[in-house]
Amino acid sequence: MRVIVLGGDGYLGWPTAMHMARRGHEVLAVDNYLRRTLALQTSSEALVANPNLVDRARIFREAGGPAVRVEIGDCRDFAFLERLFREFQPEAAIHYAEQPSGPYSMMGYDQARLTLDNNLQSTFNVVWAAIQQAPRCQIVKLGTMGEYGTPNIDIEEGWIEIDHKGRKDKFLFPRQAGTLYHTTKVLDTDMLWFYVRLYGLAVTDLMQGPVYGLSTPEADLDERLMPNFHYDDIFGTVVNRFLVQAVARVPLTVYGKGGQTRGYLNLNDTLQCVSLAVEKPASPGELRVLNQFTEPFSVNEIAERVRAVGNRMGLDVRVEPVPNPRKEKEEHYYNPVHRGLLELGLQPHYMTEEVVADLLERVRRYRDRIDTARIMPRVRWS
Amino acid sequence: MRVIVLGGDGYLGWPTAMHMARRGHEVLAVDNYLRRTLALQTSSEALVANPNLVDRARIFREAGGPAVRVEIGDCRDFAFLERLFREFQPEAAIHYAEQPSGPYSMMGYDQARLTLDNNLQSTFNVVWAAIQQAPRCQIVKLGTMGEYGTPNIDIEEGWIEIDHKGRKDKFLFPRQAGTLYHTTKVLDTDMLWFYVRLYGLAVTDLMQGPVYGLSTPEADLDERLMPNFHYDDIFGTVVNRFLVQAVARVPLTVYGKGGQTRGYLNLNDTLQCVSLAVEKPASPGELRVLNQFTEPFSVNEIAERVRAVGNRMGLDVRVEPVPNPRKEKEEHYYNPVHRGLLELGLQPHYMTEEVVADLLERVRRYRDRIDTARIMPRVRWS
Repeated sequence: MRVIVLGGDGYLGWPTAMHMARRGHEVLAVDNYLRRTLALQTSSEALVANPNLVDRARIFREAGGPAVRVEIGDCRDFAFLERLFREFQPEAAIHYAEQPSGPYSMMGYDQARLTLDNNLQSTFNVVWAAIQQAPRCQIVKLGTMGEYGTPNIDIEEGWIEIDHKGRKDKFLFPRQAGTLYHTTKVLDTDMLWFYVRLYGLAVTDLMQGPVYGLSTPEADLDERLMPNFHYDDIFGTVVNRFLVQAVARVPLTVYGKGGQTRGYLNLNDTLQCVSLAVEKPASPGELRVLNQFTEPFSVNEIAERVRAVGNRMGLDVRVEPVPNPRKEKEEHYYNPVHRGLLELGLQPHYMTEEVVADLLERVRRYRDRIDTARIMPRVRWS
Repeated sequence: MRVIVLGGDGYLGWPTAMHMARRGHEVLAVDNYLRRTLALQTSSEALVANPNLVDRARIFREAGGPAVRVEIGDCRDFAFLERLFREFQPEAAIHYAEQPSGPYSMMGYDQARLTLDNNLQSTFNVVWAAIQQAPRCQIVKLGTMGEYGTPNIDIEEGWIEIDHKGRKDKFLFPRQAGTLYHTTKVLDTDMLWFYVRLYGLAVTDLMQGPVYGLSTPEADLDERLMPNFHYDDIFGTVVNRFLVQAVARVPLTVYGKGGQTRGYLNLNDTLQCVSLAVEKPASPGELRVLNQFTEPFSVNEIAERVRAVGNRMGLDVRVEPVPNPRKEKEEHYYNPVHRGLLELGLQPHYMTEEVVADLLERVRRYRDRIDTARIMPRVRWS
């Protein structure tokens, strides 16, 4: 299949590009290095400096991997994106091309505006490039479990049937996100659903939980193929942050009471989920929503798991609650359904002690690169 | 009260600016003439050429009205909008500053993109100008009943309590709009709700149905104070289109079966609703949603009413269904609640035979100006 990976330089984008190429697809990876630029501007660079996307593709080839084509450009630029769709004629577009950080989107006007414009305009352009240049191209869009927030009812997979005053209808499950970034994903979903209804697009919207890990079979071929591993408070997700804190021997920063519960998944499961979505596509006129995570944990449970494994490795890990910089419920009901991807064939990699130990071991190789100044929260929601 | 009217040159914006000034408020009207520009570009100018906003304010003053301050500029320009909020310190912002046409937003990529960018960026900037420069300013936002679409259950006023698997929570009523324009209003609502939760803004989101009419007490002071009266298929709403078609002796263009039902209201009731919302404001941290219409009608019912009154006036009105250029249900359930504004004190002006006759009489004065080439639908959804 011809697969275009938009945001192909990202934490998930680059491993996805390699994974899809390894599965025999013809892959075109596209990026404008926005995340790298923003990480640089906020002193939040990844633990290891990654080669640029062109070099990554070359190194992957030299390490025995298949070819990954690369185009550097901005999905907000419709002329650029339309040309790629016209020339490459993708059968699937995997759309990661968004500003991916909640905290970044909460820094102030400029960062919020960039997030709003970038994310909405990219999604809008992907829809139009498909309609106008490759109408049979399915779209696999990365959303977030954060779109749903933490409602007091069970979270279904994207849709809910409502029985109201004796009449029934089916609707998008209600969404109410906790940052402007997550809110742009809500707007993306609304917009995609409109264009699916109108033009019969085939769209899979993956409501993904926080991802952790830095190893995939392809990334492990050469150290320089490693995903961008952010461990700071802005671009790093909580599990990855805790792994680095454990190795750096600074206390794990639990925000507030630590009862915040989310559904997590291993980077390798993201790759499985995305390839399953592409290879078992949604139907034309369908907005298929899948809740993409394998296990729910509270922040306290994750901290405890990293602490226990870390201590066994002699790391002397402590946990230290810090005032919560976010506006979120610290204790809440959380029961999201996640059946769809299992039914498609997902084989989960759970967060076992072995997995945590392996990740800590890998992070330990880069201990000297850790900058502990990036660990305490620098962005407050208020 | 100091009231800033954003989009103060519009079909509703200018009558609102005059009305609020007449009610004793200090009014600043802001516009960038976007709608005029787009109407010109699509050969959809209003029936009567309206003076510019600066001249309108002068003419209103000369006709005995109070002062209306005017600023010409673009709400997408944050430096401009922030300066107005800093200098004027509004206590209420009435936000009409959006590309207002569904058909325009469906013409193609450029028009859809302009609608998305303009509407989202304007709303985003209004929120931030308030937060940063006038934090106690309430926002009265014009949404549309079209946000809800035509669900198979009763439409509540913005919110719905969902009882699901034995647990309950309250959510925004599901939204699914029929054009990209209406979808931008859905996105506005999602974004406003996020910022209300986060910063405790006081917001009233008015879900307005199609408005009709060209007369208000203030507009009637001088012919040059008339609202922009569009009668074409792009900027004209259905009742106004039918009035002009009746006067021009061309058949009333019912799209498809004509069973499409919406809630309508008289322009004078829009003025009442908006002033009620401002003078009886939402509380800080509240997103108050009010369904703003007075009577539901199907398109066939409106056509029949205009036909009956027109024929009595000797106009020889015929009704002629045309193929529906839109993608919408032509027969559907429709039962929206609309209690909130009545409870606030709204005194409805219904679409009586006298009202229709008066409107036809007023349109008849401008019969020579009608361009019948603008009557058949020029934009198709597909």
